[in-house]
Amino acid sequence: MPFEFEVVAKAGAARAGIFSTPHGPVETPVFMPVGTLAAVKSLDPDDLVQMGASMILGNAYHLHLRPGDDVVREMGGLHRFMRWDRPILTDSGGFQVFSLAQLRTVNEEGVEFQSHLDGSRRFFTPEIVMQIERNLGADVIMQFDHVIPGQSDEASARDASERSIRWLERCLKELERLQQTSPFDRLSPPASRLPQQALFPIAQGGIHAHLRREAAERIRGVHDWPGFGIGGLSVGEEKEAMYEMIDVVDDALPQTHPRYLMGVGFPEDLIEGIALGVDLFDCVAPTRMGRNGAVFTRDGRLNIKRTEYRLDSRPLDPDCDCAACTRFNRAYIRHLFVSDEILGLRLLSLHNVHFLLSIVRGARQSIINGDFDTWSRDWLARYRASSPLAV
Amino acid sequence: MPFEFEVVAKAGAARAGIFSTPHGPVETPVFMPVGTLAAVKSLDPDDLVQMGASMILGNAYHLHLRPGDDVVREMGGLHRFMRWDRPILTDSGGFQVFSLAQLRTVNEEGVEFQSHLDGSRRFFTPEIVMQIERNLGADVIMQFDHVIPGQSDEASARDASERSIRWLERCLKELERLQQTSPFDRLSPPASRLPQQALFPIAQGGIHAHLRREAAERIRGVHDWPGFGIGGLSVGEEKEAMYEMIDVVDDALPQTHPRYLMGVGFPEDLIEGIALGVDLFDCVAPTRMGRNGAVFTRDGRLNIKRTEYRLDSRPLDPDCDCAACTRFNRAYIRHLFVSDEILGLRLLSLHNVHFLLSIVRGARQSIINGDFDTWSRDWLARYRASSPLAV
Repeated sequence: MPFEFEVVAKAGAARAGIFSTPHGPVETPVFMPVGTLAAVKSLDPDDLVQMGASMILGNAYHLHLRPGDDVVREMGGLHRFMRWDRPILTDSGGFQVFSLAQLRTVNEEGVEFQSHLDGSRRFFTPEIVMQIERNLGADVIMQFDHVIPGQSDEASARDASERSIRWLERCLKELERLQQTSPFDRLSPPASRLPQQALFPIAQGGIHAHLRREAAERIRGVHDWPGFGIGGLSVGEEKEAMYEMIDVVDDALPQTHPRYLMGVGFPEDLIEGIALGVDLFDCVAPTRMGRNGAVFTRDGRLNIKRTEYRLDSRPLDPDCDCAACTRFNRAYIRHLFVSDEILGLRLLSLHNVHFLLSIVRGARQSIINGDFDTWSRDWLARYRASSPLAV
Repeated sequence: MPFEFEVVAKAGAARAGIFSTPHGPVETPVFMPVGTLAAVKSLDPDDLVQMGASMILGNAYHLHLRPGDDVVREMGGLHRFMRWDRPILTDSGGFQVFSLAQLRTVNEEGVEFQSHLDGSRRFFTPEIVMQIERNLGADVIMQFDHVIPGQSDEASARDASERSIRWLERCLKELERLQQTSPFDRLSPPASRLPQQALFPIAQGGIHAHLRREAAERIRGVHDWPGFGIGGLSVGEEKEAMYEMIDVVDDALPQTHPRYLMGVGFPEDLIEGIALGVDLFDCVAPTRMGRNGAVFTRDGRLNIKRTEYRLDSRPLDPDCDCAACTRFNRAYIRHLFVSDEILGLRLLSLHNVHFLLSIVRGARQSIINGDFDTWSRDWLARYRASSPLAV
């Protein structure tokens, strides 16, 4: 089996593990930087290697539209295309398609929608999405699911959850068919080898605990999955509701398998999620917020554009050892931002991604050391003690 | 003397040299990437070190407006501010101020102008510009000069050239006064040490050979300068007129000193300039054109945005060993561009700057090897053989 998960240490529900993939092992808990369009925005793959990123994300919806999953397939898959030889996970595009509120219609077969780029009509079914994710060739691929807003009522949540489970079965069947051949068979070895891909189901259910539990249990019954996604959170619901849903789903999922909490990754969420048993996280926040001047620090968030940093000779975060903090001060990075210099975007993205990677590394180490409770309590207390500036 | 110039090999008028500065030696001929606002656009200082850049530019006009030369001074000067410990040259802002055609008035004292950013009224005199360049603390600082359009008539060119020479004398006097103290004396050592700065005069004269010769000879009579700028070229005149002016000025300047051809740096211009005896070049073209998708290659220019590169698995330039060409193919970089990914801007800037650095390194080596004539003829023939695409 190319996909294995080994728990090496535990602290309550929190665990430190190793998730093995065809592109190498991933130490968990892990934060996965998001490379929606085959690039983690404003960063170079070398930057990510330097800061110790092990697994990154791509997005099937976005890559289908640009450059086209056919182009990525022609280039030998996402790993070769973007020169990332460590593990990759692709999201199915369910979240994106269902976000196009005015531009899509759903039926049992799939979703018809209009491209956000040119309005062209497209149709996604579980089978088509598997074909796209097969062309991309990521290590872990997410099922095509029906995503609903965070505050949806029980009936809508149940309908979407049950459709997602029916679609899951179609995804599995199509992937088993596709896995007979390599999408890259026109290339010479080793590019042409048969890619091994792990399909992760996604447990939905809105903010309804019984639906979440039911979804997790039914999904477990379908197949021996290599891992599980927890979807439809951090989409408008209260934080407390989110933490409760994570707790419910993690209880209902097997302890022996990795759990991936989709789209969640603010500093406090990482620590709370790890405490509840989550192993994998992703979030666009560090790069998106970085492009707006927002900076994560151990003492809360700051915005580098503020005048108070004009002559500030301290690094973004005095406790950080990233390639921005070890070289540049706030005054310089503020100047880059105010002057629209691209280097400013890169340095803040670099710092913020490094910051989240450091949190999960710290959490992992503390689980292994047996002091996760103290570590996480201290971390959150210091982070929350300062008044984080709204960004 | 912290500034020395040694010619190590010659090939006709072309020479290979070493220009010593307080921040280390510069092998000439050299191409200096332009960091107008204390950053070479879209590149990291580490990128520049990796590609072997030795000396870079900053701009007094732009840095005076943003972040303010007072901020740079407060941060210990440009080297510390932008973390570049190799040599820096600052342009005086003459070019920028005189480009503000509708927003400035000139008299003998100086130039009153409006900031291009906020319209605020400013006044530059030779003395003020020296104070700004002293605060920035570059190794080489250019005089404040009166720059005119490329096609100006003899009377305008003479007037501007003579004013530039009078302003040169005022620059020298002011710098001699300023050099008594360190602008960084509030900082602790070594930041507080007295910076040694070399003032370069600028030979003007438009496209009038006799004015150019006269300017060069009069400037030589004023002081024993550490080097010479050749200004007001590549500003709208024909290429042939530009090459003729370079030839005339180089003849009139001492062979023993470095000559800096300001703002010139397309591939063919570098080689023609070196053949005429130029030692230092700078140009925004590689980064500015890179941000528009234009790519220099040994076989002429291409634009990466074109559809023909959609499935092109070759590097930008198969003969290039830059950090873009050794990792990514045209299909990927085209995708980044079409998708507005910042990494695309960085990779093309990186390639183009590396490309120009490689040309001057190749030229230098061929001068030392004694085959500059053959090398430069072959280089230009191949570059010009393909029909470069207009960008």
